[in-house]
Amino acid sequence: MSETNRQWLLKRRPVGRVEPDDFERRSVPAPEPADGELLVRNLWLSFDPTQRGWLQDRPSYLPPVQIGEVMRASTVGQVVRSRHPDFEAGELVFGLGGWQDLFSCPGGSGLAGVRKVPAGVPPSWLLGVLGLTGVTAYFGLLEVGRPQAGQTVLVSAAAGATGSVAGQIARLQGCRVVGIAGGPDKCRWVTERARFDACIDYKHDDVGKRLGELCPSGVDVYFDNVGGPILEAVLDRLALRARIVLCGSIASYNDVEPRPGPRNLSNLVVRRARMEGFLVLDYLARMEEAVRELLGWVRAGEIVHEEDIQHGFENIPATLNRLFTGENLGKQLLQLGEPEPERVG
Amino acid sequence: MSETNRQWLLKRRPVGRVEPDDFERRSVPAPEPADGELLVRNLWLSFDPTQRGWLQDRPSYLPPVQIGEVMRASTVGQVVRSRHPDFEAGELVFGLGGWQDLFSCPGGSGLAGVRKVPAGVPPSWLLGVLGLTGVTAYFGLLEVGRPQAGQTVLVSAAAGATGSVAGQIARLQGCRVVGIAGGPDKCRWVTERARFDACIDYKHDDVGKRLGELCPSGVDVYFDNVGGPILEAVLDRLALRARIVLCGSIASYNDVEPRPGPRNLSNLVVRRARMEGFLVLDYLARMEEAVRELLGWVRAGEIVHEEDIQHGFENIPATLNRLFTGENLGKQLLQLGEPEPERVG
Repeated sequence: MSETNRQWLLKRRPVGRVEPDDFERRSVPAPEPADGELLVRNLWLSFDPTQRGWLQDRPSYLPPVQIGEVMRASTVGQVVRSRHPDFEAGELVFGLGGWQDLFSCPGGSGLAGVRKVPAGVPPSWLLGVLGLTGVTAYFGLLEVGRPQAGQTVLVSAAAGATGSVAGQIARLQGCRVVGIAGGPDKCRWVTERARFDACIDYKHDDVGKRLGELCPSGVDVYFDNVGGPILEAVLDRLALRARIVLCGSIASYNDVEPRPGPRNLSNLVVRRARMEGFLVLDYLARMEEAVRELLGWVRAGEIVHEEDIQHGFENIPATLNRLFTGENLGKQLLQLGEPEPERVG
Repeated sequence: MSETNRQWLLKRRPVGRVEPDDFERRSVPAPEPADGELLVRNLWLSFDPTQRGWLQDRPSYLPPVQIGEVMRASTVGQVVRSRHPDFEAGELVFGLGGWQDLFSCPGGSGLAGVRKVPAGVPPSWLLGVLGLTGVTAYFGLLEVGRPQAGQTVLVSAAAGATGSVAGQIARLQGCRVVGIAGGPDKCRWVTERARFDACIDYKHDDVGKRLGELCPSGVDVYFDNVGGPILEAVLDRLALRARIVLCGSIASYNDVEPRPGPRNLSNLVVRRARMEGFLVLDYLARMEEAVRELLGWVRAGEIVHEEDIQHGFENIPATLNRLFTGENLGKQLLQLGEPEPERVG
């Protein structure tokens, strides 16, 4: 009864923007779980800017995806068969399931393992507001940015899955929150739905000028998802002892050659400011704390979040590019199927 | 009995390297101290890279020197006349006396005031190892860099007044210390006299390659006095959770147009590293603690320091350039005169 497993493998390393031909589709028999393992069927795939970095052949916080390997991705799936004492067929789990229908894995909470979707929570949230995306916002803002009530917090990619959550957490800390997003629709969502105090449209506004108007006392915390020229503009508007939380730099992920950095790093000296990078992987041991807090805020209506859900196995590689063109609003997902209710529990 | 006061005024803002014609010399009658003030004769002038920034007309941590004003500089001088209850003629003091023979000032410890040179200490040390230079190294390394015993600390401008002290303090914390300096003579001084573990000659070595050899586990703390391409090379060699202490960026102080920054700031994310600027002015309230510690280390022979002493009032503007050409080794000073012993006490 071996099932067919469709997969997208890395065929060649992309140069610049990801092209469909950078990946290769194949079908193989489903893996058979060994003793202590479980077989999982992917239902939702998560698309994250950091995946672009995994395609580069250079040292980073995780090894690069190798040519011929299944593309790495966070997924939510359902247990098909379990030879692990802690998991049963039908349970919903999340982990690094990759661009494929089926995968076998050990249990446990390591990078190769899967965790259970808590009861009563829409499963796809575990890839977004309650997943690495939201947890990144939670620890990056609170632990690295350390905003104080009354301070001004600036968030780029403010309509994105991480930025929108970071800004809303900042509002809940009593901060004045300014977003930066691309286009009037996203900016409207940021102020009207996510209730930021203001939003700068980097595609149409003069970011530096608007920062001066909207942040007259300077920026106390900048949650930076984009890098590039916006980072340079913010460096000219730092409040004393400002903190720049380096979460990512999507503006440069498709660059073939590394671009020059900001010309005004010396403002960090003048403003006695701190710029600090972080990775959510360092906070996995505290993930439950973050999920509990975030779920409370979501259920209370204090944090809103959006999901942009694509469909179709054939559309997986193209969906990654939506993050870089900015077509998505909120968390980018692709749904492969519905949970099978008869198997649950 | 009014004395003549020679002064160097800012005549025009330098573009690029400082030219003698950027300053104008004049002689005026000495100021008469008002009630509560004292008249001080400058004996030693301090030359510091940060003075180049004071010549630019842009917001910074101190107001720019204005056209027609006496050039700002740290000095050690001797009280000529006092109308302040805490000071007597003959006492040696230090403060921002400027490029002139004589100045009147209030007492007290503010930026406009002067402090007394402690008894038994060579007065010029208050401009170097016990002055803002040494105190900058002390707080920058210990409070911002926070090195741990056994870690690798890298210091640029390692033969300079601040870098040499920062590296020696790091050695006293039990760290492995690597310097970067320009030319074999300075590198020899750094390893043989200041007892760094190694020194890279940025004028002749491939800095990135040497960093890889000398810091095989990466750089835990980088005390950065120069910015520029060396900062970029270090960003490629950071240890996990590294700290970059931004003290200054002398490589760019003479730039007419701001230069692009490092292309690899994203390494701060991958390495979960922190880059932080600071100013010694924020630590003035703790200056006595630093001076006491530094003096103890100097007297014990644990910290060595050099003074490069120029002479002649006419040579003051040209002496500033010695910091940028790298002609100096150690603290750059210019001596205008000797203390008058009959007036002391």
